[in-house]
Amino acid sequence: MSFKLTKDFLESVNEAIEQRNFAWFKQNVFDLHDADVAAIIDELDEDEAAYLYGLLNENMQADVLIELDEDTRDAILGTFSTKEFAEQLENLDSDDAADILSELPKEQIEEIISHIQDNDAAEDIVDLLNYDEDTAGGLMQKEFIQAKIDWPVNRCVIELRRQAEEVEKVYTIYVVDDANKLVGFLSLKRLLFASPLTKIRDLFQDKNVISVKTSDDNEYVAKIMEKYDLVSVPVIDLQGKLVGRITIDDVVDVIIEEAEKDLQMASGISEKIESSSSIWKMSRARMPWLLIGLLGGILGAQVISGFEADIMIVPQLAFFIPLITAMGGNVGVQSSAIVVQSLARGDDQFGSIFKKLAKESLVALVNGIVLSLIVYGFAYIFDNAILGLVVSISLFTVIMFAAVFGTLIPLILDRYKIDPALATGPFITTLNDVLGLFIYFTIGILMYGL
Amino acid sequence: MSFKLTKDFLESVNEAIEQRNFAWFKQNVFDLHDADVAAIIDELDEDEAAYLYGLLNENMQADVLIELDEDTRDAILGTFSTKEFAEQLENLDSDDAADILSELPKEQIEEIISHIQDNDAAEDIVDLLNYDEDTAGGLMQKEFIQAKIDWPVNRCVIELRRQAEEVEKVYTIYVVDDANKLVGFLSLKRLLFASPLTKIRDLFQDKNVISVKTSDDNEYVAKIMEKYDLVSVPVIDLQGKLVGRITIDDVVDVIIEEAEKDLQMASGISEKIESSSSIWKMSRARMPWLLIGLLGGILGAQVISGFEADIMIVPQLAFFIPLITAMGGNVGVQSSAIVVQSLARGDDQFGSIFKKLAKESLVALVNGIVLSLIVYGFAYIFDNAILGLVVSISLFTVIMFAAVFGTLIPLILDRYKIDPALATGPFITTLNDVLGLFIYFTIGILMYGL
Repeated sequence: MSFKLTKDFLESVNEAIEQRNFAWFKQNVFDLHDADVAAIIDELDEDEAAYLYGLLNENMQADVLIELDEDTRDAILGTFSTKEFAEQLENLDSDDAADILSELPKEQIEEIISHIQDNDAAEDIVDLLNYDEDTAGGLMQKEFIQAKIDWPVNRCVIELRRQAEEVEKVYTIYVVDDANKLVGFLSLKRLLFASPLTKIRDLFQDKNVISVKTSDDNEYVAKIMEKYDLVSVPVIDLQGKLVGRITIDDVVDVIIEEAEKDLQMASGISEKIESSSSIWKMSRARMPWLLIGLLGGILGAQVISGFEADIMIVPQLAFFIPLITAMGGNVGVQSSAIVVQSLARGDDQFGSIFKKLAKESLVALVNGIVLSLIVYGFAYIFDNAILGLVVSISLFTVIMFAAVFGTLIPLILDRYKIDPALATGPFITTLNDVLGLFIYFTIGILMYGL
Repeated sequence: MSFKLTKDFLESVNEAIEQRNFAWFKQNVFDLHDADVAAIIDELDEDEAAYLYGLLNENMQADVLIELDEDTRDAILGTFSTKEFAEQLENLDSDDAADILSELPKEQIEEIISHIQDNDAAEDIVDLLNYDEDTAGGLMQKEFIQAKIDWPVNRCVIELRRQAEEVEKVYTIYVVDDANKLVGFLSLKRLLFASPLTKIRDLFQDKNVISVKTSDDNEYVAKIMEKYDLVSVPVIDLQGKLVGRITIDDVVDVIIEEAEKDLQMASGISEKIESSSSIWKMSRARMPWLLIGLLGGILGAQVISGFEADIMIVPQLAFFIPLITAMGGNVGVQSSAIVVQSLARGDDQFGSIFKKLAKESLVALVNGIVLSLIVYGFAYIFDNAILGLVVSISLFTVIMFAAVFGTLIPLILDRYKIDPALATGPFITTLNDVLGLFIYFTIGILMYGL
């Protein structure tokens, strides 16, 4: 039932743009969902994108603008005068307008805002620009529906009709007292089925009123909305006054972005990037982790060089260097991933560190025994029983150490308020590499009697 | 504004349970949000959990039951007779009831369903049990609000009032024709502001009706709801008949679970596990990747053993084995992570493989040059200019290969409909290890003239 953008369709779009074929767009594009129109425009060159965007009516432009990729949006907005830019913003929800503005230089922001005709809208946007973009204040919109606690249902419906014109999606009506403090909420369903003269006071729900503060961070907002299964959450200021609301679609974007960031961090990419980012930005984002890896490799070389004489006598020891380092890294990353996720979810908040450590150690014990037995056989084949013993005992020891470090490091980072996700990347791998090499060669010279 | 579970509060709960202090619960617990009550019960021992759950009223029990951790829920339901179990299910939404039942053995399911009093509810549950849990059918609920296209607003409100009793959250009314086919939707807002005699036909929206089919998979549903910013989506069968709806809260859970699964897969954990999973399950989930790592290590040993004589002559070559393998692994994982994410998002659907490859190669070129220059200096210090050249040329070559493999492998897996996330884990690291060693030693013997 949903539109699927194909290569053929894109070709037709290009053709129609070339021929300035308005009728074709009327028939094939204007009735599509805004998200689909945005997806089409995202695939066009700058000039063509601006042309197609220009064909849309005002409402559609606003809806499409906010769905576009940042690059495409910037390109289109770049073709506008300050006045036209301001007009575009007026048709957007306040939070979307503020998001777009916040990426511009300060002078340009001021100039654009001075061109916004609707004073209330301008004020809302200026207000939103004050909040950090990673907080509830930066995520909220000023468009929401509120009812005073003393209104009867019929007055409420009239007032709401007025308010609702500028609020695209209405899920819940927030109920405030005379001082504008949030005191509860009312679902549209209840309002719809209530008799006209009932007072809101007798209808609204004041139990379990979940709200967030403007200063709460994005991830906290996402956690609250997920925990309480909310589609929108009211935002209050320090005095408890209702100042905005956050809707679930914006929070879904936060959740997906956070997940992508976590996955990138676990993969050793330290800056949020997309496959469309510039080569320079992509290189820069990867460099920190590669440098840590390089440093680890150099430290590893330092460790091995301490055993140079031993390697000349028993070169077979060198065979299993990659096995020891790889396994230490893998086990460490596995343990830390579990700990990081349980920290992120807020699970086991009352489980002690020792309980986690004991569990990870037991898992490592089971895996360590199985893997050491397997590797003993292979190392035996490569050389002899001594090498078999050296490799299997080292592997077991390295697995145990890696599990302990993989568990402890994210817990310690978390305690010191450092994002524990840092620990799932090359950091833990590097530490385990160096330690593992030292363990391996020490056991080697002991067993070979070097 | 939201309840925060503390250690002190938990102690008070335990005390109150010991003293069978009903008054304390009435004052401190019964008014909390169901999600908070569930969080409290999750932290209790089985007997205490069952006791506190038993104190709740029927409605609260249903709301809490579905918020509980699986272990706790199973423990509580385990204390019920089949008849009591059936009663508990009757108070749940159909999708939640089906989810809980689907984890039981077939005979037990049949027995429990035979005890459900409400025939319609039983039918709904039986129907939902037919769908794969990873599809829209498995995710949908049978509770939704629908209006016939020919109804006037006043009849609609009356009918909706009747339907709405069993539908907890109403966001959108689905409009169907006489054959029950979905033809459009109507927001509560529009209904609220319409005059009583207007026909639904003149009020509803038939443009951009987004729906999913029962057979669509979970991730597709999540993608559609995210793309179109929906809070609920109607589910239709093969004939286009409306059979259910999916709400955003369930989809948020899908998104979070998918993200956790991806992160675990990238960390080498092949089965969805939680920090509360059993030690045996945790070991089993990690074993496949560790075995691949072990195999890679053994292949690596095989490669190095081919250069045994050379290592006896130039043992310094062994020093940089960990550096070469670690860097190949890191670069490969970085490249594949970017590709996997862009595939998951469905970006660049029209960008060719060669474009991606060219970009990743350029990034690798930049990073490879920088890192090779740095490592040259260190290797020079360790031994001499030859070792410096061997290590830096090898590192550069390995980085280039790793970037190419890291980009190509997920793209190839995706083409063959295998989850490309598999490639971000130890698989790519292992491949790069073996290849990197071969490159390193080959360059080594060439440069040293061995």
